[in-house]
Amino acid sequence: MWYLRDMPRIIETVPNLSEGRRTDVVSEAVAALKRVPGIRVLDVQSDRDHNRSVLTLVGNEEALKSGILGLFEVAISRIDLRSHQGEHPRLGAVDVVPFIPIEGATMAECVALAQEVGRAVAERFGVPIYLYEEAASAPHRRNLEDVRRGQFEGLADRMKDPLWAPDFGPSAPHPSAGATVVGARMPLIAYNINLGTSDVDVAKRIAKAIRYSGGGYRFVKALGMMLEDRGIAQVSINMTDFKRTPLHRVFETVRAEAERHGVPVVGSEIVGLVPSEALLDAADHYLRLEGFNPSQVLERKIRETG
Amino acid sequence: MWYLRDMPRIIETVPNLSEGRRTDVVSEAVAALKRVPGIRVLDVQSDRDHNRSVLTLVGNEEALKSGILGLFEVAISRIDLRSHQGEHPRLGAVDVVPFIPIEGATMAECVALAQEVGRAVAERFGVPIYLYEEAASAPHRRNLEDVRRGQFEGLADRMKDPLWAPDFGPSAPHPSAGATVVGARMPLIAYNINLGTSDVDVAKRIAKAIRYSGGGYRFVKALGMMLEDRGIAQVSINMTDFKRTPLHRVFETVRAEAERHGVPVVGSEIVGLVPSEALLDAADHYLRLEGFNPSQVLERKIRETG
Repeated sequence: MWYLRDMPRIIETVPNLSEGRRTDVVSEAVAALKRVPGIRVLDVQSDRDHNRSVLTLVGNEEALKSGILGLFEVAISRIDLRSHQGEHPRLGAVDVVPFIPIEGATMAECVALAQEVGRAVAERFGVPIYLYEEAASAPHRRNLEDVRRGQFEGLADRMKDPLWAPDFGPSAPHPSAGATVVGARMPLIAYNINLGTSDVDVAKRIAKAIRYSGGGYRFVKALGMMLEDRGIAQVSINMTDFKRTPLHRVFETVRAEAERHGVPVVGSEIVGLVPSEALLDAADHYLRLEGFNPSQVLERKIRETG
Repeated sequence: MWYLRDMPRIIETVPNLSEGRRTDVVSEAVAALKRVPGIRVLDVQSDRDHNRSVLTLVGNEEALKSGILGLFEVAISRIDLRSHQGEHPRLGAVDVVPFIPIEGATMAECVALAQEVGRAVAERFGVPIYLYEEAASAPHRRNLEDVRRGQFEGLADRMKDPLWAPDFGPSAPHPSAGATVVGARMPLIAYNINLGTSDVDVAKRIAKAIRYSGGGYRFVKALGMMLEDRGIAQVSINMTDFKRTPLHRVFETVRAEAERHGVPVVGSEIVGLVPSEALLDAADHYLRLEGFNPSQVLERKIRETG
């Protein structure tokens, strides 16, 4: 008697703008995004030292495409990388634009959106575009740090190398706006696990055990560090694909490794935003749920229902 | 640089309609609800044997008040309890209307809404209203089964007793529509825990141990039963306030009690809808989250952001 409407499509994008000092420029950029119906700007973080702002917004494909084009318009008219200084590496006025599937959208659709937006930006503004992560056109372009090596200042030389021809746009940098790295990736979860010890070496050993580069989980980056104010050690983790390497598995592995050192896990913390699915998966695991369907979550059902 | 808008208020109501056979009447009732802007009808379950339909909808106060009044209009014109038969106890054409806080609304606000809607229904339709659960005006009226005792057929006699004077409306039943029980309560979660045994007595003992009436948790109702098709025993639970008696505590208690009988917990299941908070609480518990704020959940942040 009632009908399921098309699931609303929620895609997130986290454009990084090479401006973290002039608040009027950042405001103008945010205003350009907010003017687009259907876009919700969830967060704006500006860093003076990095001279960079990280914007977090959601919407459907159409809204995000239109919003990102508006963002470029502001960035190109107000930011000139020839006089830009900051601690954070950057290639362009709009430096990075990742598209992230949240609900009702697949990674393949985010890759297609990255291609579409990249092509449109190149055509309209003459900014060269590199596709990265899941949208990368070659393995050596997957990693953001690799694409950005040499920064804006080294870009003109680097673009002469055929290996670094852009995916869209001219084969030379935009004079003031450089180039932009556009792509698709899973949401990143910043997740820390706190240990009941002041011995940072324990945290470092555990971090090495769980991270990909140390032989650990494929979608885990981790470091051991000291929380000086609390006098305890922490395993600081970036979870780069919570669907394939889930929170609870990492938590339990850290707990088991810590136990071998006689150290308890005193708690964990999520920094910033987390997709609900990552936590529902943990509940599902620990409660041993059988046949649980995310549509049983009331708030999700509301979103699905017209 | 961005502003938190007022949180959208999500209140749920689950009106029970004394009609489960004539689909045109149920459709008309659902249509009356859907006509109200801001109401989302999440589910409609009709039962022929009970001759009763359970409608699940959400909205804000204003929308729900208007929707419930529209529902009464249809029910009063199309349902006559003098000729209504069904297995389920009932007092009125619209039998029960609970209001349930989901997000951005308190129990006190749901109690106030129950009073406001009850008064409006009594005034407009001349249907006597009993307030129940959190909205009850006296302890002996809290429990729905107590209020409904004697059903529609015994109502005229019962209303002569001053203890059973209605909270709103005339002191005699509406001739065809009886009386309605309106109130406020927490969301109910139907939660079953499956045991690795074919001995139903183990499930019965555990059910007794965890339920309120057996000395167990305050907001737990539980029964032990046999899942004949799977050949295993199940503790079938109604969680009547997951904030004060959380899922993970009940799960762990059942696990510990089962262990004492040498029986493993093979899984658990949630039947129907569950508020996300109930599962986030479980993740929070097992991951030992520190300082976790529900606004960190991306989908909730989206709802909070304009």
